Amino acid sequence: MDALDQLIGVLAKLPAIGRRSAERIAVRLMTDPARKLVKQLADALQTADRNIASCRICGLLTERDRDPCRICSDPRRDRERLCVVEDPGDVLALEQSGAYRGLYHVLGGRLSPMNQEGPADTTVDRLLERVRQENIGEVILALNTGVESDATASWLKHLLEAAGARATRMGTGLPVGSGISYVDSLTLQRAFEGRR
Amino acid sequence: MDALDQLIGVLAKLPAIGRRSAERIAVRLMTDPARKLVKQLADALQTADRNIASCRICGLLTERDRDPCRICSDPRRDRERLCVVEDPGDVLALEQSGAYRGLYHVLGGRLSPMNQEGPADTTVDRLLERVRQENIGEVILALNTGVESDATASWLKHLLEAAGARATRMGTGLPVGSGISYVDSLTLQRAFEGRR
Repeated sequence: MDALDQLIGVLAKLPAIGRRSAERIAVRLMTDPARKLVKQLADALQTADRNIASCRICGLLTERDRDPCRICSDPRRDRERLCVVEDPGDVLALEQSGAYRGLYHVLGGRLSPMNQEGPADTTVDRLLERVRQENIGEVILALNTGVESDATASWLKHLLEAAGARATRMGTGLPVGSGISYVDSLTLQRAFEGRR
Repeated sequence: MDALDQLIGVLAKLPAIGRRSAERIAVRLMTDPARKLVKQLADALQTADRNIASCRICGLLTERDRDPCRICSDPRRDRERLCVVEDPGDVLALEQSGAYRGLYHVLGGRLSPMNQEGPADTTVDRLLERVRQENIGEVILALNTGVESDATASWLKHLLEAAGARATRMGTGLPVGSGISYVDSLTLQRAFEGRR
């Protein structure tokens, strides 16, 4: 069944979708009464493709006719703080947390020698330019946790401090609501190091 | 960002995709270089929508110009065995296992008083008709495990035996490769009951 296999193949390329999930989704789409979900998904894809772009200042996703984005152009945001994320998707989670009211900068990648990705694959130049031109007091590095992200954060901290900015990293430790026995060793080490 | 929210909302309706996964997928689609994945997904959806239909005999998904489906029209399949599944997607997993070489029948639902779903929401009439008309020796009920599916299987077994067919159910017990301490209580009970 070539058309179904093709659909399963494309779905399996998406993040967080394995082969079995892709099969379930494809079958669900094709067995949905009147193919309502197929139409909704096709419409949503087309609309998003037409209307969504990246903010020219921070790199977040934004409506094409709203550039700079909602956050960059919001006068109520704290303009002296800049939060650096690897991916625009990270901002959705941060905004939902309500823990941060400053501006953002999407790095768009990290240093990954294994994948031959270096500084040129990030927006580091634009970040340093913003730090020099805007009145940024603190740059918070909200990168992922992991070896490559840690190396990227150290490298950025160095560059940012050389550019005269204060650079901090997100705290690491136990996730709230998690039991000690469910947490991996590295996180436990970090939680010890970060004890208050 | 209405277009992005809309896309996230539709993605979150798909099986196996929660809110956070839907966000990650939407962001990935919108940040993919040249939007290649968006185009691939849109094309695959359109092609599948145009070409995929349900087999008029068994209810499996099939190419529109191949009805009856590949399995129903395959002379090498064992035509005396009929395997009843709830959903066409279940057949993908069963075929991959290579454990079965007979024909299929998609029930399309199960008895679910909680969701006001009864016999009319299934293809039970067509199943009994097939059992009477085709030369079926054994009907294997490959329904899911759970209260509603169990009740549906008992009900079908009763009807099938009244129609003169032998009805069996899939064996239940420990999944291969799983440790005792990772398996839920009900599965352990079943494994005890099914001990050989």
